[in-house]
Amino acid sequence: MKELLERLVEKHQFKTREGKCADYIPLLAEQDPSQLGITVVTRNRGIYKAGRFPERFTMQSISKVIALILAIMDCGERKVFSMVGMEPTGDPFNSIYKMEIFQTQKPLNPMINAGALVVTSLIKGQTVEEKVGRMIHLIEEMTGNINIKVNEDVFRSEYETSHRNRALAHFLKELHLIDRVEETLEAYLRQCAIQITCEDLAKIGLCLAQYGKTFDNRMVVPACVSRLAKTFMVTCGMYNASGEFAIKVGIPAKSGVSGGIMASVPMRMGIGVFGPALDQKGNSIAGTALLEDLSRQLDLSIF
Amino acid sequence: MKELLERLVEKHQFKTREGKCADYIPLLAEQDPSQLGITVVTRNRGIYKAGRFPERFTMQSISKVIALILAIMDCGERKVFSMVGMEPTGDPFNSIYKMEIFQTQKPLNPMINAGALVVTSLIKGQTVEEKVGRMIHLIEEMTGNINIKVNEDVFRSEYETSHRNRALAHFLKELHLIDRVEETLEAYLRQCAIQITCEDLAKIGLCLAQYGKTFDNRMVVPACVSRLAKTFMVTCGMYNASGEFAIKVGIPAKSGVSGGIMASVPMRMGIGVFGPALDQKGNSIAGTALLEDLSRQLDLSIF
Amino acid sequence: MKELLERLVEKHQFKTREGKCADYIPLLAEQDPSQLGITVVTRNRGIYKAGRFPERFTMQSISKVIALILAIMDCGERKVFSMVGMEPTGDPFNSIYKMEIFQTQKPLNPMINAGALVVTSLIKGQTVEEKVGRMIHLIEEMTGNINIKVNEDVFRSEYETSHRNRALAHFLKELHLIDRVEETLEAYLRQCAIQITCEDLAKIGLCLAQYGKTFDNRMVVPACVSRLAKTFMVTCGMYNASGEFAIKVGIPAKSGVSGGIMASVPMRMGIGVFGPALDQKGNSIAGTALLEDLSRQLDLSIF
Amino acid sequence: MKELLERLVEKHQFKTREGKCADYIPLLAEQDPSQLGITVVTRNRGIYKAGRFPERFTMQSISKVIALILAIMDCGERKVFSMVGMEPTGDPFNSIYKMEIFQTQKPLNPMINAGALVVTSLIKGQTVEEKVGRMIHLIEEMTGNINIKVNEDVFRSEYETSHRNRALAHFLKELHLIDRVEETLEAYLRQCAIQITCEDLAKIGLCLAQYGKTFDNRMVVPACVSRLAKTFMVTCGMYNASGEFAIKVGIPAKSGVSGGIMASVPMRMGIGVFGPALDQKGNSIAGTALLEDLSRQLDLSIF
Repeated sequence: MKELLERLVEKHQFKTREGKCADYIPLLAEQDPSQLGITVVTRNRGIYKAGRFPERFTMQSISKVIALILAIMDCGERKVFSMVGMEPTGDPFNSIYKMEIFQTQKPLNPMINAGALVVTSLIKGQTVEEKVGRMIHLIEEMTGNINIKVNEDVFRSEYETSHRNRALAHFLKELHLIDRVEETLEAYLRQCAIQITCEDLAKIGLCLAQYGKTFDNRMVVPACVSRLAKTFMVTCGMYNASGEFAIKVGIPAKSGVSGGIMASVPMRMGIGVFGPALDQKGNSIAGTALLEDLSRQLDLSIF
Repeated sequence: MKELLERLVEKHQFKTREGKCADYIPLLAEQDPSQLGITVVTRNRGIYKAGRFPERFTMQSISKVIALILAIMDCGERKVFSMVGMEPTGDPFNSIYKMEIFQTQKPLNPMINAGALVVTSLIKGQTVEEKVGRMIHLIEEMTGNINIKVNEDVFRSEYETSHRNRALAHFLKELHLIDRVEETLEAYLRQCAIQITCEDLAKIGLCLAQYGKTFDNRMVVPACVSRLAKTFMVTCGMYNASGEFAIKVGIPAKSGVSGGIMASVPMRMGIGVFGPALDQKGNSIAGTALLEDLSRQLDLSIF
Repeated sequence: MKELLERLVEKHQFKTREGKCADYIPLLAEQDPSQLGITVVTRNRGIYKAGRFPERFTMQSISKVIALILAIMDCGERKVFSMVGMEPTGDPFNSIYKMEIFQTQKPLNPMINAGALVVTSLIKGQTVEEKVGRMIHLIEEMTGNINIKVNEDVFRSEYETSHRNRALAHFLKELHLIDRVEETLEAYLRQCAIQITCEDLAKIGLCLAQYGKTFDNRMVVPACVSRLAKTFMVTCGMYNASGEFAIKVGIPAKSGVSGGIMASVPMRMGIGVFGPALDQKGNSIAGTALLEDLSRQLDLSIF
Repeated sequence: MKELLERLVEKHQFKTREGKCADYIPLLAEQDPSQLGITVVTRNRGIYKAGRFPERFTMQSISKVIALILAIMDCGERKVFSMVGMEPTGDPFNSIYKMEIFQTQKPLNPMINAGALVVTSLIKGQTVEEKVGRMIHLIEEMTGNINIKVNEDVFRSEYETSHRNRALAHFLKELHLIDRVEETLEAYLRQCAIQITCEDLAKIGLCLAQYGKTFDNRMVVPACVSRLAKTFMVTCGMYNASGEFAIKVGIPAKSGVSGGIMASVPMRMGIGVFGPALDQKGNSIAGTALLEDLSRQLDLSIF
């Protein structure tokens, strides 16, 4: 497996040149776009790594999966889905228009920013610290890594420039879907700035793959919630390229604009990828190619 | 004229029962919906009044005309229209979607909220007080009334509940069309809360009708700016009922959700109407009927 | 006047180089884009011409004004406006989306293609020939020109390539707004292919300017219908540049993609312009500049 | 299994009262809404039936899966997906607007009507008969049923009232995505009117579940095409309720407005359901409930 991963990293390395780092967040723009790394954690505790796997990077949208899991564990499915829908949208992650023109009274799903803000606001906690602390704690449980932290520089950088998210949050306030705008926004942007490595992502993926059981056999997420998370990862995990990813790769996965992808192959493995050069829809361009190849080689598609 | 006005007010009084007061601002919702008043100021200084003409009410969207005039006087047409368009939209006043889906880099016109926020941000002044003070001063110049004030209760009430406007403002910030969100929002909502009477509106209307010359012959607005204001009043002055109003009434006019309408018949007269019961598009329901009838009786259409 | 017109044609001639002829209709694409001509007919029967005024060209969208007038004369305002709205849209002339997403049960106005198809279907006549014949007859009445004909080549060329209009027509059929799709489409495209000259357009403009009375004092259109036509020309006559045209020129006008503009200055004059090089929104680029200049020189704005 | 199915049919029978038959096609509206039937065909050739399983009904949108498979077998993935996208939309099946306002040059996916029309036009065949004959032949191959026929009455009924589809087809013609509008429309509506039973659907589902191998072990569809079909069934198979169906049921499935659902559980079974009472999004209301329950009882979710 290790050799396969090394071969694939090498093979798809050139792809990094076709993308570019997210430029709307200064600190992300400064990343080296040529990086590409992967970690696979298998059901039988095997850990395989290749490329730039040791890098730390921020979760960004991958954190939406963690927040959704926690919100459901906190409030129950019924409550959460009374305030956010279940449908893929075909629209960009920061889109507002459907809520306006179709007068849907809730965001279409928890993986677009509008839905993610609602989900974060539902997580229990008196303060931003408590909410974010509980998300970090869940990540620590899933990964066994007790050193999960928020990257304060990235958080601050995003907080100051997050005008579109702020617009979304005020729009949601008008719809009575969130209450405290600035707090929700701060919690959301802090969760996006949580730092992880490919190994952390792979272990989260494995935990979902094993229906809530971690690599070292601790049950930390209910099976039904793990299943639900993987389902959203298929229908809306790769922004508005989710359909294409499902066709070409066929693995539940969630990407973030920092270049991370967390993937979960039911009952087989978790995968963490890092490659900050992005394609036009915001997904790691070499990371996606790497996963497509890996899926074909190991027949990982769930379809 | 006075008799005609009294007859028309009486005739259309019943119409007030078919509308209702704006309900999204608590203080507006408390108004007596049966009120209907009108003041006409003619070119030769005649002043004619009927019905509930002495009432004070807030300008709301009517203030967008004043702000536009001042912004152009401050920055010039070129600058203003590099940041806001000239086209009617057919969409509701608080709409965002076109800026998102058509990626227009500016609001479609200065009479929808998005455009009005940009316009207000262009008005000169170091502070909110200075900006609003200058708008009040312009109104005082146009009306000769030196007692123009902001209704602080209405301002405060709107400021606390103005989530959609705040969403718009942050969206505009992302487009680099406004800089200081809260200041712009405060200035905008203060201008909306400026109190006037039917007579004030009629005098503003006459000033525009006379290409910037007041009822008492002081030149306070450049002729070309007056013309421009009247043109926007025709194409976008009555929200997304402007087209129908142009067909049925044919007079440049601007309405506000407090129930006011300011109308301007070129070289003939200015008209101020107050009738807080609104139709579904946010225009005074009896006021519109009254103006339609008056236009027909006196052949006021510009077409 | 003649000298003024000649001077202005010469002055704005270079502008033709900045636009290009409509390319979606083969026969229009073959026109010489450098052409520019104007005819003005004044209230006192003065006729002034300059440039390429003798050219014949097809009415295209200018015919929408004729069709609207005839449909109202045939069916009455109430019937017509129960099936088509009065509001400007800010959208392109061939747009469908608002009818779908806002589930408006009628096109927004009679000057966009969707609305024009409905209007044409309302014109009385058992056959296409009869409908189109009656439109031609009305044009002959307004212009005194008894040689008005359809350009069969242009008609045929458009009929074969008019997929978007056909899509619109079937959409309208589903909304029960038109009945016979192919007949309506044929009548509509025949009316678009009616050939006229600048002088014809100027005389139509004058007829509307004089509230239905022709240059030679025959009353051929009811005054109220003339007024209504001019109002739509202001709010939606120049496609989605109508707002800007109202600001800069301030004259009721209707353009067509063949490069014609018909303008109507109330109680003063009618103007016909021909300049097939178009700007991005489909209006004659030099023709618009010419009218803007003329309006300023002669103070023609209605505002 | 048979007892389980009978119990579930009985249990969810009452649900049929909460929906209603499709009303836009006269012949579908006449169906008895209380019907509910199911057939399951398992990998080891077991066939289990309950309720109104013997009914014949038309495939409607379920035929889109067959057409997609055939088009890919005819033209290859690359060609097909150069003309139709892979993304779920969140919009109704007959939506046009996204192609207009986002100027996407192709329909978002092959399961909405716009995409399905393009797919059908790609199927090889000189005539409508040949195209439809080849689709019928493929169904016969997959099901082993050599009596597959088009219901001519349903076809004719749809063909005459299919204004929205005709609008879509002309729109696609303008985008150069289809060539012969009427032929494509006829082929598409004929494929929709192909009659099948629950057993046929179950066998199609099993064929896809077994990566192209039929219940009696004939290989009739390439494995990669079967996988692709199942993927689209997950992301867009249940109209704009696909996301919710994935969460609640978790099985690749495609529904039609006649009340049929074809479902495919990888390597385990195919399922055919018939229940013509529909929910608001056009899916069999009792059929969906039945599948949700069955999925839970037998743990069929792929996630």
